[in-house]
Amino acid sequence: MYNQFLLSTSMAERLYYTIAADLPLIDYHNHLSVKDLAEDRMYKNISEAWLLNDPYKHRAMRICGIDENLITGNASDREKFNAWCEIYPKLIGNPLYDWSRLELKKIFKIQTPICKNNSELIWSEANEMLQTKAFSSLRIYNRFSIKYAAPCASILDNLSAFFSIQSLAPSLRGDDLITPSPSFIKKLSALTGIEINDLESFQSAVIHRLNAFQEANCRFSDHALDNGFRYQKDDGRSDERFKRMLSDEVLSVSDKIQLSSALLRFLAGQYAQRNWTMQLHIGAQRYTSTKLRNAAGGAGGFACIGNSVNIESLVQMLDDIELGREGLPRIILYTLNPSDNAMFSVLSGSFRGVMQGPAWWWCDHLQGMREMLDIFSSYSVLGTFVGMTTDSRSLFSLSRHDYFRRMLCGWIGQKSELGEFPNDFEILCELVRAICYENANRLIE
Amino acid sequence: MYNQFLLSTSMAERLYYTIAADLPLIDYHNHLSVKDLAEDRMYKNISEAWLLNDPYKHRAMRICGIDENLITGNASDREKFNAWCEIYPKLIGNPLYDWSRLELKKIFKIQTPICKNNSELIWSEANEMLQTKAFSSLRIYNRFSIKYAAPCASILDNLSAFFSIQSLAPSLRGDDLITPSPSFIKKLSALTGIEINDLESFQSAVIHRLNAFQEANCRFSDHALDNGFRYQKDDGRSDERFKRMLSDEVLSVSDKIQLSSALLRFLAGQYAQRNWTMQLHIGAQRYTSTKLRNAAGGAGGFACIGNSVNIESLVQMLDDIELGREGLPRIILYTLNPSDNAMFSVLSGSFRGVMQGPAWWWCDHLQGMREMLDIFSSYSVLGTFVGMTTDSRSLFSLSRHDYFRRMLCGWIGQKSELGEFPNDFEILCELVRAICYENANRLIE
Amino acid sequence: MYNQFLLSTSMAERLYYTIAADLPLIDYHNHLSVKDLAEDRMYKNISEAWLLNDPYKHRAMRICGIDENLITGNASDREKFNAWCEIYPKLIGNPLYDWSRLELKKIFKIQTPICKNNSELIWSEANEMLQTKAFSSLRIYNRFSIKYAAPCASILDNLSAFFSIQSLAPSLRGDDLITPSPSFIKKLSALTGIEINDLESFQSAVIHRLNAFQEANCRFSDHALDNGFRYQKDDGRSDERFKRMLSDEVLSVSDKIQLSSALLRFLAGQYAQRNWTMQLHIGAQRYTSTKLRNAAGGAGGFACIGNSVNIESLVQMLDDIELGREGLPRIILYTLNPSDNAMFSVLSGSFRGVMQGPAWWWCDHLQGMREMLDIFSSYSVLGTFVGMTTDSRSLFSLSRHDYFRRMLCGWIGQKSELGEFPNDFEILCELVRAICYENANRLIE
Repeated sequence: MYNQFLLSTSMAERLYYTIAADLPLIDYHNHLSVKDLAEDRMYKNISEAWLLNDPYKHRAMRICGIDENLITGNASDREKFNAWCEIYPKLIGNPLYDWSRLELKKIFKIQTPICKNNSELIWSEANEMLQTKAFSSLRIYNRFSIKYAAPCASILDNLSAFFSIQSLAPSLRGDDLITPSPSFIKKLSALTGIEINDLESFQSAVIHRLNAFQEANCRFSDHALDNGFRYQKDDGRSDERFKRMLSDEVLSVSDKIQLSSALLRFLAGQYAQRNWTMQLHIGAQRYTSTKLRNAAGGAGGFACIGNSVNIESLVQMLDDIELGREGLPRIILYTLNPSDNAMFSVLSGSFRGVMQGPAWWWCDHLQGMREMLDIFSSYSVLGTFVGMTTDSRSLFSLSRHDYFRRMLCGWIGQKSELGEFPNDFEILCELVRAICYENANRLIE
Repeated sequence: MYNQFLLSTSMAERLYYTIAADLPLIDYHNHLSVKDLAEDRMYKNISEAWLLNDPYKHRAMRICGIDENLITGNASDREKFNAWCEIYPKLIGNPLYDWSRLELKKIFKIQTPICKNNSELIWSEANEMLQTKAFSSLRIYNRFSIKYAAPCASILDNLSAFFSIQSLAPSLRGDDLITPSPSFIKKLSALTGIEINDLESFQSAVIHRLNAFQEANCRFSDHALDNGFRYQKDDGRSDERFKRMLSDEVLSVSDKIQLSSALLRFLAGQYAQRNWTMQLHIGAQRYTSTKLRNAAGGAGGFACIGNSVNIESLVQMLDDIELGREGLPRIILYTLNPSDNAMFSVLSGSFRGVMQGPAWWWCDHLQGMREMLDIFSSYSVLGTFVGMTTDSRSLFSLSRHDYFRRMLCGWIGQKSELGEFPNDFEILCELVRAICYENANRLIE
Repeated sequence: MYNQFLLSTSMAERLYYTIAADLPLIDYHNHLSVKDLAEDRMYKNISEAWLLNDPYKHRAMRICGIDENLITGNASDREKFNAWCEIYPKLIGNPLYDWSRLELKKIFKIQTPICKNNSELIWSEANEMLQTKAFSSLRIYNRFSIKYAAPCASILDNLSAFFSIQSLAPSLRGDDLITPSPSFIKKLSALTGIEINDLESFQSAVIHRLNAFQEANCRFSDHALDNGFRYQKDDGRSDERFKRMLSDEVLSVSDKIQLSSALLRFLAGQYAQRNWTMQLHIGAQRYTSTKLRNAAGGAGGFACIGNSVNIESLVQMLDDIELGREGLPRIILYTLNPSDNAMFSVLSGSFRGVMQGPAWWWCDHLQGMREMLDIFSSYSVLGTFVGMTTDSRSLFSLSRHDYFRRMLCGWIGQKSELGEFPNDFEILCELVRAICYENANRLIE
C-alpha cells in the first residue's frame, strides 16, 4: 500500500521508482541544529526527538483545545506525547497527518496507527530504539542521501561546527542585518575587530563576515520581508540614518524603511558578487497572540498569513537591485499567502534570475504543493523549478523530500494520463530529475 | 440516480447513508421568520414561498437580463415564476441550480425539470399542495430533524415567539450595537427602562437585553465587519465619543472606528462570559448599485465581495479581546472573499477558540464548500470544523444541510479512494459525525 | 490521439464534434495587424511569422536563461528559432507548450515534436510552405471560420484598412483618451479639424472620431486600468484640470485621477449610447524591469500581475456611470490577478450589463480558463458567459479558439460524468453554443 502512496498512475510509479526515489537531497533552506549533529546528540525519548521542539504539532494541539500545560508547559514528556497521539486522528488532511506517519515508518519502521490507544506502544517502541547508537542524530542524518544541507546561521554565529560534516554549509539568516540595532552592531564590531561608526564601516564588517560564510561553503542567504513590507528608493541619506540609529535614536517608520531598503540593496549586490542565491520569505504576520507569545516564545507556531505583498514595492526593489553595479543575484521568492502564488510565479518573467520557491511553511502540504505546481507550470516554466526544501528544525523532516517527490510524480502522472502532459517517459524523467535535483544542484555548483 | 448524487465512491455512499443522512440539524445562523413559524403561516403560492423573498434568485434573473418588473416589480406572482423557470437552465453550475431541484424534490416530491415549458405544470402542482395543511410553515419546518435553529434577532426585537417552538433560539444580530445612533439608543432605553447618557449606562442597557437573549436560549451573536473594516486599540476616550454621538454630533471616520472597536471589545467580553459563540461575517461590500438599491432595497442581492481583510486590524482586535478581563469567546470567522480562506483558516492556530466557519453567502456552493474543506483541512484541523449553517431566510433552504452532507461525504470518499485519506470506515465516520453534528452541538451544550 | 485532446469523456467528444468545433469565430478583442491582412503580407520564415513578434515566447526563453541576444537581439532568425526549440520541452504545463504544438499542426500540419534536435527539420519544412501563396496572411486568416474579428485601433488611427476585409472591425483602444497629453490633443485636433481648448471641445473631437469608428463597424472599446487604479467622483473641476493639462502643467496624482475618472464617465456614456461593449482590462503592473524595457520595449512581455483591484473604486465608478444620463454600457471586466476572479464574477449580480470576461493574458491557459469557469459558473451564471477572445498579435493564435472549445467541452463533460451537471445532451449543447458563439454574437448584432 505505502509503495503506491500518492502514485495513482503507472507513469507516476515508474517516474518515482526509476528516477525520483534515489536522487540525492539538496536541502537548501532549513533550521537543523548543527550543534546537535556535530555533537551527535542522542534523544532521551520520542517526545524530545519529535514533539517538544515542533511548533507545527503544538499549533495543531492548540486548535484541538489541548491545555497549554500539555503542549509547552510542565507536563511530562510522556503526558505530552499521549496528548499528541490523542488528537492525531482529527488531523486527516493536515500535512502533520502524513508527515507523522511517514516519519514513524521511515525512522523507526513503526506502522502502528497513531491514536490514543496506541500511544503507550509507540512510546515504548520508539524510545527503546532511541537508546541505541543507530538512532543518534548523525546516524539519522546519514540515513538520508544528502548532498548539501544548509541550516540557517546568523551573521554573528560561530561557523566551526559546519566544517565537521562534509554536506553541511551555513545559509545566512540576514534579518538582523537589515534592521540593525546598536547592541547588534557592538557584537558585530567585537567579532570582526572592525570599528563601526557609519554605514561604510558597517558594510566592511558585514563583508568580513560574508567572507567567513563563503569559506564555510555558504551559497544561500535568506531575509524575511514580513506583512506590511515596504521598499523605498535611495535618497542618499542612509548613512545619516544609520548614525542616528547607532546613537540610540528611535527611527521613524519611514526612516526604518529607507534604511532597510538601502541595506537590502547593499546585501543583494554582495550576494550577486559571490554568486549566492538570495531567498526572500515574504508575507508572514508574526505578531498575533500576546498570550501565546508569552507562553511559547516568539517562534511558537502562532504566526499567521499576512495580506498580499505590495507588488509595487517588491518590483521597485528588484528593479533597483538590477540597476545596481552588481546586478541581481539569483533570487528565490517565497510567499506565505497562497493567493499571491500567480503574482509571484509571473515575476520570473519580469526579472532574470528571479524565481518562485516551493510552498512555504503553512502552505507546505499536498494542497499547497500542488497548487504551487499548477500555478508555477502555467505562469512560469516548470522545467526551471528548484524543488523542495524542508525549512524544518527536525532531522525527521528530511523525509519530506520523499513526500514531495511522490506528490510530484503523482501530479505529473495524472496530467499525463489525462493527455495534458506528454505520455513520454524520457521527457518526463528529464523534468523530474531537473526539479528534484539538477536545478537546485546548479545553485551550489 | 438522486440516491447517489455527489456520492461518487462506495465509501462516500456508505458514510452518507450510515452516518450523515440522519444526524439532527443544528442551524446555528439563519434568517428564518420566527413570526411565520409561530403563526404557522400558509403560503399563497410557490412564488410567495420560494421566489418573492429570495435575493439569490432575483440576482440570477438580473444577470440573465430579466426585466426588473418581473423580479421585484409589479408583475404577477405567476409571471415572476414563469420568468424564473425560463432562465433556470442557464444556471448550470450555480448553487441555485442544485438547490432548486433539491428543494422541489424534497418539499414537493416534484422532479419535473425546471424550464419554461414546465413552469405551468410546476406552478399548479406546487400550489395545490401549498393549500393543504401539510405544507404550513411549521409542518415544513418539522419535516427536518432540527435540534437547534438560530434565526437572527436584533437587540430590540421582541423574543416571545422564540419560546413557542422548542428548537428555536435567537442569534443576536449585533450590527446596531457597534454603530449606535441616537434614535437606536432612545429605543433601547425605552425597552430596558434604563436611562442612557454615557457609555456605561449604554452597556448596562445592553447587558439587560443580553440577559433576555440568554433566557431565550441564545448561544450565538453575529457582527458584520464589512469591506474596509479597521480596528483601533483603546485610547481611553470612547466614553467621550459616545456622548458626542449621543448629542447628534457626526463623528469622524477615525472616531467611528475607535467607538466601534471599543464596543466590539465590550461585547466580546460579554459573549465570553456567557459562553456564547461570536460570529464575524467579514468582507461584504454592501453598497454597490444605487439604482438596484432603490429598486430592491438594501438587502436585494446585489452586494459584492470586498477586498482582502486587513489582517493586522483583525489580529490586533483578537489580541486585545484575548488580553481583556473575560478573554476570547469562541469566535467563528466567515470571509466573503475566497482568496482569504487560507488566511482565515490559519488564524485558528494563532488564537485559541477562533475557527473559520463554512463557506458564506456567494461562496456557499460546491466549488466554495470544497475549496473551504481543502483549505481548512490543510491549514487548520479538519476534525474541529463546525460544519454547515444555511444563513437563509427560506425554510426550504434547510435542505442545504443534506446538500452539504452529500458534498462532504463525496469529498472524503474521493480522498480516501486516492489513498490520501485513510481507507478506514470507523475513522471517517468519526470525522463525518464531528463535522455534521458534534462540533456544532458542543457550541450549544 | 489529437482527436480526443482534452475530451476525456464521451459527452465531451460529442459536444465538441457536434456543436463546438464548427461554430464561427467571434474574436472580439485582439491585436492582429490589419495592415498585414490588407496587404496580404508574406512571411520570410517561421521565426518572423511565429517568434520575433511574440513576447510570450520571449518571456519563456528569458525564464530559461537564454541570452537576450537570441531573443530580441542581433542573432539571426534561425539562431533564435533554434534557441526557442531548445527550451520548448521545459515548458510542459505552460500554455505555450500546447499552443505551439497546436499551431504547428493546424497551420502547417507539422507534428514533429519541437525540440533542439528537430529544430532544423521544422525550420525547413515550415519555411518551404511559407514561401507559397497558400500561406499568405490573408489565406491563413481565411482558414478560420471568422464571423467578426476586432483588432485594436487607437482613436488617431486611420481605419481605411478595416473596410477591405468584411469580417474585420476596429476595437477602440482608449488609453490615450483617459490620460490625454497636449501632444496627443494636437494630433486629435488636426485629425478632426476641431479646435480643442477645453473639455467640451475635446469631447466634441472624440465624438467625431467615435462616429468614424462606428462607421467602420466598431462595437467594442477597451481601457486598461492598471495596478493602483483609483476612481474619484465628480467634483465639477474637470474642465479646469483639462485646461491646466493642456497648458503643459504637470498634474498632481489626485488631479490625474479626477480627470481620468471624468473621462471614463464621459466615454462610458458614449459607448452606452452607441450600444458598444466597454472592456476594462484591470490589474496589470506594466513597469517592472528597466533593463528589459530598454532591451525589449514597453510591451516586451515582462509586465507582471498587480495587487487586487480596489473594489470600492471600481464599484463607485460603475455606480456613477449607471446614474449618468446614458446609463451603463455593457461592460466586460478582465482581471490579471486570478485571486480576484470571484470578486469580478460577483459584480455581474451587482450591476446590470456588467460581466466578467475570459481568463486574460498570463491567466489564459488550461488552469486559468478552468478556474474562471469554475468560479464564473458558481458565482455568476454560466449560460451568460461570452467565451473566448485571443487578445493576440498573431494570426496563428486564432487556433486558440479551438483550444478553448476543447477545454470547455472537456470541462462540461467531466462535470456531467460526475453527476454535477445534467447528463442531458440537448441542455449541454445549448450551453456550449451560447458560450462559444451566441453570447458574443449578441454583442455585435
